Amino acid sequence: MRDRLTIIKVGGNVVEEESSLKSLLKDFSRIAGNKILVHGGGKTATILSEKLGIEINQVEGRRITDAETLKICTMVYAGLVNKTIVAGLQALGNNALGLTGADLDIIRAAKRPVETIDYGFVGDVKYVNYKALSELLNTGAIPVMAPITHDGHGQLLNTNADTIASELAVAMCYDFDVRLIFCFEKSGVLMHESDENSKIDRITPEFFEQLKTDGIVSGGMIPKLSNGFTALHRGVSVVVITNPAGISEGLRGTRLELE
Amino acid sequence: MRDRLTIIKVGGNVVEEESSLKSLLKDFSRIAGNKILVHGGGKTATILSEKLGIEINQVEGRRITDAETLKICTMVYAGLVNKTIVAGLQALGNNALGLTGADLDIIRAAKRPVETIDYGFVGDVKYVNYKALSELLNTGAIPVMAPITHDGHGQLLNTNADTIASELAVAMCYDFDVRLIFCFEKSGVLMHESDENSKIDRITPEFFEQLKTDGIVSGGMIPKLSNGFTALHRGVSVVVITNPAGISEGLRGTRLELE
Repeated sequence: MRDRLTIIKVGGNVVEEESSLKSLLKDFSRIAGNKILVHGGGKTATILSEKLGIEINQVEGRRITDAETLKICTMVYAGLVNKTIVAGLQALGNNALGLTGADLDIIRAAKRPVETIDYGFVGDVKYVNYKALSELLNTGAIPVMAPITHDGHGQLLNTNADTIASELAVAMCYDFDVRLIFCFEKSGVLMHESDENSKIDRITPEFFEQLKTDGIVSGGMIPKLSNGFTALHRGVSVVVITNPAGISEGLRGTRLELE
Repeated sequence: MRDRLTIIKVGGNVVEEESSLKSLLKDFSRIAGNKILVHGGGKTATILSEKLGIEINQVEGRRITDAETLKICTMVYAGLVNKTIVAGLQALGNNALGLTGADLDIIRAAKRPVETIDYGFVGDVKYVNYKALSELLNTGAIPVMAPITHDGHGQLLNTNADTIASELAVAMCYDFDVRLIFCFEKSGVLMHESDENSKIDRITPEFFEQLKTDGIVSGGMIPKLSNGFTALHRGVSVVVITNPAGISEGLRGTRLELE
């Protein structure tokens, strides 16, 4: 039987506010066994861009990454947010190691080709160095991944954190029994956006189509769920969408299931 | 016989200008065997501070690090400069891994006590996890260290890069035969500041005292040389001060020697 690996992606306000980050790190530090944390940091990057007078361009929730914006993302994601998390986990006795895709060539990506939209320095994942990650996990390290990758030719690239989490989850199935958890502010996917009591416990691909048609699932939640189903199809055992409390309460939240 | 380890500290303009960085990384990538790169990034941090309207305070060349300045240092050193170097080395086939002292608890520091001056979030090195670094080197990884440490209680700290390089060099003597190279813009310590032909080949502690008295060695060069002599006293085999070209030319530069 393969060892279990838990991959948690945290985004939104969770990692960018001191109080919610503290509580998340406590919950994360209690997870037994192999684990990887993947984080975002978009809100802080937006604030820094505004302070520096750099225009923010987004298309369908995806940031257009020009050279200056890439610098900001690298500073915020790989620097400030990543190292704050690493130091916080070390204080809780978790042997965290902050990484981007460039470190140890963990994630190689290709600059997204320009079709109708030029996303700039945005990378699509091409290869996950699961062997290097497995070796790190075997030494007891806890990787903390910032959503920055590289192309192998010296160019850093901005890559969506949900996508990184899913791609890592799929690649790590080679060596581990993988659980993928998308952790955000809400207790799961909600039937009614503002009603935490309307959490959906279980979503199948058919139900997902219906939720999209009915407009209940929209915006950034659509690629998140699509990524989740792809991960299940490609060997990931469990995909759950929840909030930090859901992690500590035995993975309560919305579970994706293939049937 | 112990394996050789080369620790190179690069600072000044070397890592912060694209052309000199490229040339440095090529020279560094050609060094055979175990190696660690330690870098600064102060100039970029100063520019970002100015853009953000954050006041820069320095006492005797040391940055006073308030909470906002620490954020900037973490973003610039651990984010932008570190990952640019890592991606550049990966492109040259060097399996670089960017680290701060918080990652894998590599360097633990204590916030400098307030005596006459409050340096803010500046850390003095207390402990180097040479075992974790040795393990990384044994897997073929090439650590790239940003001058940020942590206190083990979740606080990141700004730490002088020369000091980090010396402390790493001394700690790694436990497992390796260590060479410590301080790499900056000039070909070595110069008798006449602006004359590259006046390079001093060899400095002993006695000569160092004389150079200080004569005002030939001053400013930031004094702690660099002091650190170098301390490293020699504590077991480091070779300490050289040179420029990137000096690395590729078989370590030409100014060599520190105990007698």
